[in-house]
Amino acid sequence: MNTQLHIYNTLSRKKELFEPYNPPYAGMYVCGPTVYSNPHLGHARANTVFDILYRYLKHLGYKVRYVRNITDVGHLENEDIGEGEDRIEKKARQEQLEPMEVVQKYMNTFHRNMKELNVLEPDIEPRATGHIIEQQQFISRLLDEGMAYESNGSVYFDVSKYNDRYGYGILSGRVLEDLISNTRILEGQDEKRNVYDFALWKKASPEHIMKWPSPWSEGFPGWHIECSVMGMKYLGKPFDIHGGGMDLIFPHHESEIAQSTAVLHRQPVKYWVHNNMITITGQKMARSLDNFITLDELWSGDHKLLDRAYEPMTIRFFILQAHYRSTLDFSNEALQAAEKGYKRLMEAIDKLDTLKASGKSTIDVDELSGKCYEAMNDDLNTPIMISHLFDGVRLINSVADGKEKITGDDLEKLKKLYNVMVFDILGLKKPGQAGHNTELTGQLIDTLLELRQQAKLNKDFEAADRIRKRLTEMGITIKDTKDGAIWEL
Amino acid sequence: MNTQLHIYNTLSRKKELFEPYNPPYAGMYVCGPTVYSNPHLGHARANTVFDILYRYLKHLGYKVRYVRNITDVGHLENEDIGEGEDRIEKKARQEQLEPMEVVQKYMNTFHRNMKELNVLEPDIEPRATGHIIEQQQFISRLLDEGMAYESNGSVYFDVSKYNDRYGYGILSGRVLEDLISNTRILEGQDEKRNVYDFALWKKASPEHIMKWPSPWSEGFPGWHIECSVMGMKYLGKPFDIHGGGMDLIFPHHESEIAQSTAVLHRQPVKYWVHNNMITITGQKMARSLDNFITLDELWSGDHKLLDRAYEPMTIRFFILQAHYRSTLDFSNEALQAAEKGYKRLMEAIDKLDTLKASGKSTIDVDELSGKCYEAMNDDLNTPIMISHLFDGVRLINSVADGKEKITGDDLEKLKKLYNVMVFDILGLKKPGQAGHNTELTGQLIDTLLELRQQAKLNKDFEAADRIRKRLTEMGITIKDTKDGAIWEL
Repeated sequence: MNTQLHIYNTLSRKKELFEPYNPPYAGMYVCGPTVYSNPHLGHARANTVFDILYRYLKHLGYKVRYVRNITDVGHLENEDIGEGEDRIEKKARQEQLEPMEVVQKYMNTFHRNMKELNVLEPDIEPRATGHIIEQQQFISRLLDEGMAYESNGSVYFDVSKYNDRYGYGILSGRVLEDLISNTRILEGQDEKRNVYDFALWKKASPEHIMKWPSPWSEGFPGWHIECSVMGMKYLGKPFDIHGGGMDLIFPHHESEIAQSTAVLHRQPVKYWVHNNMITITGQKMARSLDNFITLDELWSGDHKLLDRAYEPMTIRFFILQAHYRSTLDFSNEALQAAEKGYKRLMEAIDKLDTLKASGKSTIDVDELSGKCYEAMNDDLNTPIMISHLFDGVRLINSVADGKEKITGDDLEKLKKLYNVMVFDILGLKKPGQAGHNTELTGQLIDTLLELRQQAKLNKDFEAADRIRKRLTEMGITIKDTKDGAIWEL
Repeated sequence: MNTQLHIYNTLSRKKELFEPYNPPYAGMYVCGPTVYSNPHLGHARANTVFDILYRYLKHLGYKVRYVRNITDVGHLENEDIGEGEDRIEKKARQEQLEPMEVVQKYMNTFHRNMKELNVLEPDIEPRATGHIIEQQQFISRLLDEGMAYESNGSVYFDVSKYNDRYGYGILSGRVLEDLISNTRILEGQDEKRNVYDFALWKKASPEHIMKWPSPWSEGFPGWHIECSVMGMKYLGKPFDIHGGGMDLIFPHHESEIAQSTAVLHRQPVKYWVHNNMITITGQKMARSLDNFITLDELWSGDHKLLDRAYEPMTIRFFILQAHYRSTLDFSNEALQAAEKGYKRLMEAIDKLDTLKASGKSTIDVDELSGKCYEAMNDDLNTPIMISHLFDGVRLINSVADGKEKITGDDLEKLKKLYNVMVFDILGLKKPGQAGHNTELTGQLIDTLLELRQQAKLNKDFEAADRIRKRLTEMGITIKDTKDGAIWEL
């Protein structure tokens, strides 16, 4: 049984016991968004997954410093080959805005969407443009180390030189020979010694807006350098955890490792953690396939692939029902199944408050608790943890039906377990909890149901029906049970 | 009658017709918070005032670029004399955090509080640490101009040299002689040529955390330089509007003018706009007087000076009921009066939907509309505008009572006028509008009131009273009027 957290390390390709460098402190850096478009399902997954890691580490008692960056410069259109226009500048041109207006607009949307998903704010959210000097200093170090070279005002990382000394490809398993044959060669790339070399600093063309003076040219940093710099600045050299989507393993994280190792002369990060991708009804999500679903489209239902709107908590639960290292396939059916599961869980939590204590327990809360922790400790296995919670739901229902018994102490333990697992660790919220008037809404509905019950007792069935009809019109479903009427929105 | 916006310009000390440099574009820069503590009433006022200007300019059809900065480095404790510890670093030491964790924490709170006050997000929110290179470039220009000098690794602005060429004190009216006699002289200031010279770049002590390399020293920028740099970077040289609290006129804005003029050789800003201060029951708000009230304390009522909690919209209405250039005195009585006024206005707006149209109008909607615009055009006179809206409230009530008449067309105009003035321009929200379930809440309460009415008709007064009692327990007040029962939360 896992009594301590084990996490899959992409670097070693196995699950490892989590032991930070300086307990009780733990540092984690996660690649945040390039803020040039609206956040989509992929952002929801990555940020929810690392929110779980952040929440669980804090729950375990670690003092966590969580750094998640904002990329607001230097991420090019075709980053696999280090070419193309800066994504933000391109959007600025299209929307006739200042690049920093584009950044602000999509950063605001990202923050709002993450709040809707109940993703906690990181402790530091550094921006690439806020660390230009630090990036230049880092590039100078790489030049001093002989691991980078200047060419025509740009500075490139010398991958083959690095490979000779440290071995390139440790994270992704790619070897230089493959890179040569797989890399498209474009015009204007002849300033690089090798096609697989990547830019640390790019000389800007005259019309480029976001550029800064440097020892090499008026230019801007390459995409990979910011994360090496900001991770080490705020978390140390080396630091504990670096996370991101699997699509970032190559070239982004591989490049980060090379840059940082060349300066530190050791591995910069102890645990590399990657979440798997979202597919859309079996297909890769891609702009060319027109199957990107933004989070605002999910909330509104306004997308051709959507049958209807979904609540943020449905999306969160859907994400958590898969293990973070498995692919997760979007479909309306899957979301609707997640919605049902989420509601069933929430109903059971509500039911916990109605359970009556007995003199003895026929259910083992400690065992259930142990299984939940065991699942979380086994590489954050949220789907298994949730399945244990559903086993508990059956027990809760059995206690409610009188088939099982629970003592007062065990009932308190059970309530605490669900509170901790569901709200603190999984980060779910009760439906409508975002609204200020939820409690009031419940009280009002309960009052109407009492009046309906009273009308029934008075044999005024017309009045009772009228109340039910009005509630139905408001989208409130009434179910009569032997314990009285229950409702849901 | 003012048919065009006139705004008071602190620079000319008179109201001037607003004519931006490049209509329909208008640029405004407003000094944002130094993010080292929780936002208080003063922040609420300044940001609400400039939110009104932003909203009104947009309403008038200007394409506005609103820049509001985040000061995350360089603001010293005793900024009047340019001395003391960096405010953020001091807080970081006290809270045992990284300075950037302090920045993130208080920036997040600021953003949340501004959202609660319904203050619109600026188009660009640049951070001082995101513009270190630009600030260094600007300082180099000042050195080239001979308007700054290096001393012991720090760079100071040469105020007397500037004064000789351009005249110092144009905004605040202060003259150098006064400055000499009013400036405290501290030890360690002997690296300045004159006591009134201010730092552009400060050499950092070894233990200082937030520092960057520069041609002069490892150090950090002075407080004033960031706003000159970011204002011109995003809005042009010169630009239209610069705003802030009156407490920033000297030394902050005076220093900005000097720095920017020395580089541009002309005035950098056309309109300087300043809001007056908040006093607390007649006293200046000051940490030494222990009368700072944070916004979260206002929402919770948890402060010794507060009788109870207040809603954000009460605070917003309270602020708008004073002209922005008048002092505004906080007291519980004043807030409770504002709360009543706000509710009366919202009730009238609800009543608009119940008015019945007649064949002719006895009220002049165009006149009312003209007066509202006239007030806004007269230096954003929101208290006068609101008083016109209250004149309109009396008319609405008279139409409801049948004492006045209104045509269908006029009724539509009147509804539109209140929508535009109250929600678009004053930026008020209906009570509880923040909650998702407000409409549902209203429907539920209305249903309960109908049942109560039915019970009364059936002479079942016990049932009717029970419903009222239950609603009262939920904090809902019922008033019986001749048109039926109305309720408020």
